[in-house]
Order: sequence, then structure tokens, then C-alpha cells
Amino acid sequence: MTSISNLPATARMMERLEKLALDTDEPGKLTRLYLSTAHRKAVDTVMGWFSEAGLTPSLDAVGNISARFEGKTPGLPALIIASHIDTVRDAGKYDGNLGVLAGLAVVEELRRLGETLPFAIEVIAFGDEEGVRFPITMSGSRAVAGRFNMAALDGADAQGITMRAAMETFGLDTAAIGAIARDPKHVLAYIELHIEQGPVLEAANQPLGVVTAIASIQRFAATIKGEAGHAGTVPMPYRHDALAAAAEMILAVERIANGRKGMVGTVGIIGAQPGAVNVIPGDVNFSLDLRAPNDEDRNAGVAEVLAALEAIAKKRGVTLTLSSGYEDKAALCHPAIQQGLAEAITGLGFEPIALPSGAGHDAMSFEGFCPMGMLFLRCKGGISHNPAESITPEDADIALAAMLAFVRKLDPAKLRG
Amino acid sequence: MTSISNLPATARMMERLEKLALDTDEPGKLTRLYLSTAHRKAVDTVMGWFSEAGLTPSLDAVGNISARFEGKTPGLPALIIASHIDTVRDAGKYDGNLGVLAGLAVVEELRRLGETLPFAIEVIAFGDEEGVRFPITMSGSRAVAGRFNMAALDGADAQGITMRAAMETFGLDTAAIGAIARDPKHVLAYIELHIEQGPVLEAANQPLGVVTAIASIQRFAATIKGEAGHAGTVPMPYRHDALAAAAEMILAVERIANGRKGMVGTVGIIGAQPGAVNVIPGDVNFSLDLRAPNDEDRNAGVAEVLAALEAIAKKRGVTLTLSSGYEDKAALCHPAIQQGLAEAITGLGFEPIALPSGAGHDAMSFEGFCPMGMLFLRCKGGISHNPAESITPEDADIALAAMLAFVRKLDPAKLRG
Repeated sequence: MTSISNLPATARMMERLEKLALDTDEPGKLTRLYLSTAHRKAVDTVMGWFSEAGLTPSLDAVGNISARFEGKTPGLPALIIASHIDTVRDAGKYDGNLGVLAGLAVVEELRRLGETLPFAIEVIAFGDEEGVRFPITMSGSRAVAGRFNMAALDGADAQGITMRAAMETFGLDTAAIGAIARDPKHVLAYIELHIEQGPVLEAANQPLGVVTAIASIQRFAATIKGEAGHAGTVPMPYRHDALAAAAEMILAVERIANGRKGMVGTVGIIGAQPGAVNVIPGDVNFSLDLRAPNDEDRNAGVAEVLAALEAIAKKRGVTLTLSSGYEDKAALCHPAIQQGLAEAITGLGFEPIALPSGAGHDAMSFEGFCPMGMLFLRCKGGISHNPAESITPEDADIALAAMLAFVRKLDPAKLRG
Repeated sequence: MTSISNLPATARMMERLEKLALDTDEPGKLTRLYLSTAHRKAVDTVMGWFSEAGLTPSLDAVGNISARFEGKTPGLPALIIASHIDTVRDAGKYDGNLGVLAGLAVVEELRRLGETLPFAIEVIAFGDEEGVRFPITMSGSRAVAGRFNMAALDGADAQGITMRAAMETFGLDTAAIGAIARDPKHVLAYIELHIEQGPVLEAANQPLGVVTAIASIQRFAATIKGEAGHAGTVPMPYRHDALAAAAEMILAVERIANGRKGMVGTVGIIGAQPGAVNVIPGDVNFSLDLRAPNDEDRNAGVAEVLAALEAIAKKRGVTLTLSSGYEDKAALCHPAIQQGLAEAITGLGFEPIALPSGAGHDAMSFEGFCPMGMLFLRCKGGISHNPAESITPEDADIALAAMLAFVRKLDPAKLRG
């Protein structure tokens, strides 16, 4: 372990995170949905801080705040440092917001040091990553990467308000969305600091992790048709209990995911019908979420899980129906960015933990658009999407120091290779 | 296999079962709740058939219909042959109703043969066994056995109507309930014919089974407290997934019940919170229903299950809380009645299958009150509490022939021993 850098920007960032958490749609808790009143307030708050840092922020047509910190000469390709300022309902203070304010803090430290770099830095606060309000996620980062789906404008929230109408109310010009897309030639790379949202760093007793890839994911909705019956009168050997079958399947998912490096498998939703204490369940439905660090491993893991589930259904004389839902390929972090971040962490006296990101992040939007990488920060108990989200100022300081070291050593040539 | 008796009473009973199914609270399906309009109609229908059979039926203060067929001399102790005429919602035609009309058919056959017995026969149609409407079950048979709980009168149905108010509307005098109780000295024994509600007889290819005991039962409500987390970011080894723990417990219940003779274990209700496709369940609740043919086996099975569940919770680092709910001791069928029924079945050329009843029946109310026994009739697919409930006229004929043979050979002295 090593001493702490105590960067002036760290204390400021921690204060700002507290203040930003007050821009909420629900008093007493942090809920800041895309294009809401709280989002509007947060835009004003964050743009004020951008200006204090000497930047000239602008709000784009999907509600992203962005500003450039020019390099040694104006107009150089930019390293984007970004994350999002929307939140889930009853959220923590750090998911997204930390990454935005850390980007700003890096610029503040560079200005304090009087340094410019052989590239520009563009700090962005995306307006929508969580996808809580409308049936689309990461619309802010997708717009920047030229991947915004205009059909999403017709999607509506729970109140029936379309994204288009919400944008117009917010004062945005939907006709200008296409123009948000950056020219890849003008983007050097994308990096994002985010809380880990998992327990790996805490367990490793290290503050920072270098993300290797954002997981490949596939989801299924499963239904099992067995045979309902009286809990007292059908002897065990005669049963086709749909819930007992589901139980064996849940354990198979767990066992298979456990046996494959980096894979996770989760059954988060389950229901049994008819659902009476004295009736053997005849029908069960459950959700299945499978992820792995790359597409090959995911496909292999999915195949193993599906084969196991089919075998269990066959053995138990029940019918299994699986419908495939959401699916996304893995987004690999650029080796040079991984290496640069790892060196920065090592330089501070810490061990860079290499780990995949099981959760989706804005960084995914830049896969194939520009070199991309992510830095994970230890969070207490691995808890996220919860008011109990917690980081220490010491860890935040180490993260800023690592980001600062990374950008100061970053050689644009290595990313072009 | 042997030929069929073709008793005149069989065809009549099968016709009556069809007619009685038309007395329903829900057009198009059979739903006949206690003290409902359909129950009132069914009372009139059944009392009419009692009268046709030459009996003098009366309606008691809880809505039971009863009538005596005197023995060789008036006033002899009575063999009660009974079951219930209330049903579950969307019921089958045979559960309960068969046992009542079979009792009547036995009397009709005795009258046709011009026989009287060294005991009376009392046929009873209980008004409430299923307990669908009020928070009490088997109130009809309990009243006859002197075990009616007067506090149940204050229990209300889903509409807030108390049992007391419903009885008054029905024209019953609640003050007379206590007087329904028979004097045990005047009751020789209790027997009941019921569809099996399970698949054992069908699998054995035999029409009739002799019940050894009505199962000992204990129910629990289980809650598991694990740790919720992001389905993508918490690696498998770090999880305390409440649903995976529940899955292992469900399989343990199944395995233990499978390994113990006559034991059944069922998890009929399950819920997982927070219940999202991308969140590891932190909390799970499930129901547990455990039954065995006698109390010793049930207690031993329950102990084994609870120990297994605790061990799983401990191993997985989750907290298990179990609260004990409904519990009932086993009701043992009298050996002489079992033997008499078995001999009657053997005499017809069939194999008497000895089996416990996993479901509760009115016969339970007479445990310790008088010698008690039950005859089970094969039903299609083991299905009950469902419009698909089905028996064949051939099997019904065999059942009546067996009951007739049983009562004609029954030696009252053997039951007093």
C-alpha cells in the first residue's frame, strides 16, 4: 500500500457528488430520470461546475453535457472521459455521477498543473444510461457514437409521454440528434471510471480494477409445464412437479456458471401456479440471465445451460419452453488502455485487478467506434443501485491520481496501432 | 378380475351424481359453497332422494342432512356412512357427493334385498368439508362428533358475512348446534367412500383401496434472507442468492420425502424479491407441506427436512426462518374396518390396495370418537378438485358391491374389542 495523493480535485469532487445527489425527482431519496425536472436541475448544476473549471459546456440535442479541454494545439483528437447523470429510482450517489465528475476533476488537475496533452480531453455527462424511463438505454452515449436509433423517439414512458415529447418539453431539438455523432477520426479513445457494483475489489483489498471487457449477455424467459396435483394424495414417484424441476434447473445454472471462468447466471424472477400451499405446482415461469466476458464463452455457457435444462425437463417428464430475450455481444476493452491503466495503478503502489464488467456501461456504445477502456473503483459491499452505495474519499483520490497518471502517459500512437 | 355386480342402485347413483352437479353457484361449472344458494338447492335435491329411498331425512343446525335406516330392532347403535356435499370452486362431481349418495345406495340395496342388520345405518350429507367459504373446515362432521368450535361462527367469508349470519339466512338455529353431537355409545363406527384423488389405484390397476390412515400433516412458511445484487457484477462465488438456496431446499424436501415410505413433501408457493431479471434475489418465501401416514414418521420426516434446510442455509450463508402453520395428527383407520373392507374387495375378486390418505376427509373428525375407516375409489388420472374428475360406472358398481358386502358381514362385536 502507498500514501494518498490528496489531490485538491478529490475533495471538491466528493463535495459535488453530495450536492448533485440533491437534484432528485423524489424528495428524501435520489431518483433522477432522463429528461425529468431533476435532470434539468442537474444539467444546470453540472454545467455550472464545468464553467467553474474553465470549460465551455454545451447541451446537445439528447441532453448530454459536453466540453473540450484542448490539447497542445486546438482541434486535436479527443480522449472522451464520460459517464451518465441519470439514475435508477432510489439510487446511490456514485453510479454514473462519479465518472462524470472524475472526468472534470482530471481536467481541473491538469489545469492546476498547467499541463496540456498531445490530445484534447472531452468530458461528457450523458443524460440517459439507465434506461429507467423509456424503453431504450444508453441513448446519450449512442448518440455520441452515431448509434442513436431514431425509432426510440416514439417509445413512451409509464405515463404515455413519448421520448420525443419529453425532449421537446426539455427544450431539445430532435432534428439535431444526427449531428451529435462524433467523427471517429476526431476521437482518440473513450475511458470511463465507474464504481465496480460488485465485491471483487473489496475482496482483493485493492481500490482499483482494470476492466477487460463488458460482458456478453443473453436472457431467456422459461416456462415449465408439469402436472398440478393434490399435495397430500400424489405420492412422490408419480409427480411431475414444475417447481421441483425449476429448482433443479436453477441449481444447474448456478453449477454451470460456477464452473466457467467469468460466467454468471441468475434466475431473478420466479412464479409457480396455481400457487397454493396444498397443490403441487403445475406451471412455473422463471427468468434467466447469462453473461460471460466474451461471446465465445457466453455461447458455450448458454449451450451448456440449455442442454442441462432440457435434460432435466426430459428426466422429470415436464415440458420446458425457452424464449430468448435481450442479447448483447461483449465489448472488449482496448489492450493499450488496459495496459496504461494497469501501469498507472501499479505506479501508485496498488495491484491492478483485471476483471470483466458484468453490467452494461456507456463504454459499450463505443465498441468498434474507438479504443475503449474502463476503470472500476471499489465500492462498499459491492452494493449499487441502492442508497447504500458507498466509496471512500481515499479510494476516490487514488482513482483520480490513476486517471491523471494514465492521461499524462498516454501515447496516442499506441492507440492507433 | 371378476364380473360386475350391476346393482340397480349403481345406475341410479350415477344419474344422481350428474343431477346433483347442476346445483351450482356458478353457471357452467360446479361451485357449491357451504350455506350458499346452491347448497340450499342441493339440500332439497338430496333430501328428496333420501325420501325416495324410504328414509326420513332431517336438516340439522349446521346444515347436515341425516337419516337413519334402522337395524333389526329400532334404536341400535348406528354405522354412519357419510361424506360432504359442498365443493371447491370449479369442482368435479364426485369429491364428497359420491360418498353421500353411495351411503344412500347401500340403504337402497338393503331395502331391495329386504335385509336389516344388527345395527342401524345413518347416512349423512355434511354441509361443509372443503372449508372454501369460511376459515374452518369439516364443520359438519365436527358437529356430529361433538367437536364443533363455536368460535368459528364469528369467522367471515370474503364478503365479510360471518358464518353465524350465513347460517341464520339459511334458516339454521345456531343455538341448536351443541345438540347435534351424537352420543358415542349410539355410534358403532364411521365409514366413508371417497375418490382417491391420487394415482395409486390407477397405477395398480385396481378399483378400490383400503385407507390405512389419514395423513399426519405439518405446514411451514419459510423465508430466506440472502443478499440481493446485480446479476452481472457479482461473481458466482460471492453470491448469497436466496433463490438458489430455496432451489436446493426444494430438492432436499423432494429427496427426503422420496426416501421415506408414504411421506409427501410439497412446496406449492414461492416468491422471490426484488424480482427483476437482472437482480440476484435477496429474499425468498415459500410454503412447505409435509405429510406422512403416522405421526412418528411425520415427526421424523419433518426433523430430517428441517435439519437439511438449516444445513443448506448455513452452507450458503443465508438466513432461514421457518414458522410452523397448520398441523394435524394422523387419524388411524380401525383395523377391523380395514380388514372387513379388504375382505369385501377380495370377495369381489379384486386386490385390496392398502394406502394412506394424504388428503384430509370428514372421517378425521371421528378419530377417537368411534372406529373409523375409508374406502378409496380409483379416479381417472388421480385428478380431483377439477371438472376433469372422473370415475367409471363399473368402478362405482364395484364400490357399492364392496360396501354392501362389508355392512352385511360387519360384526359389531369386533368393533367394540
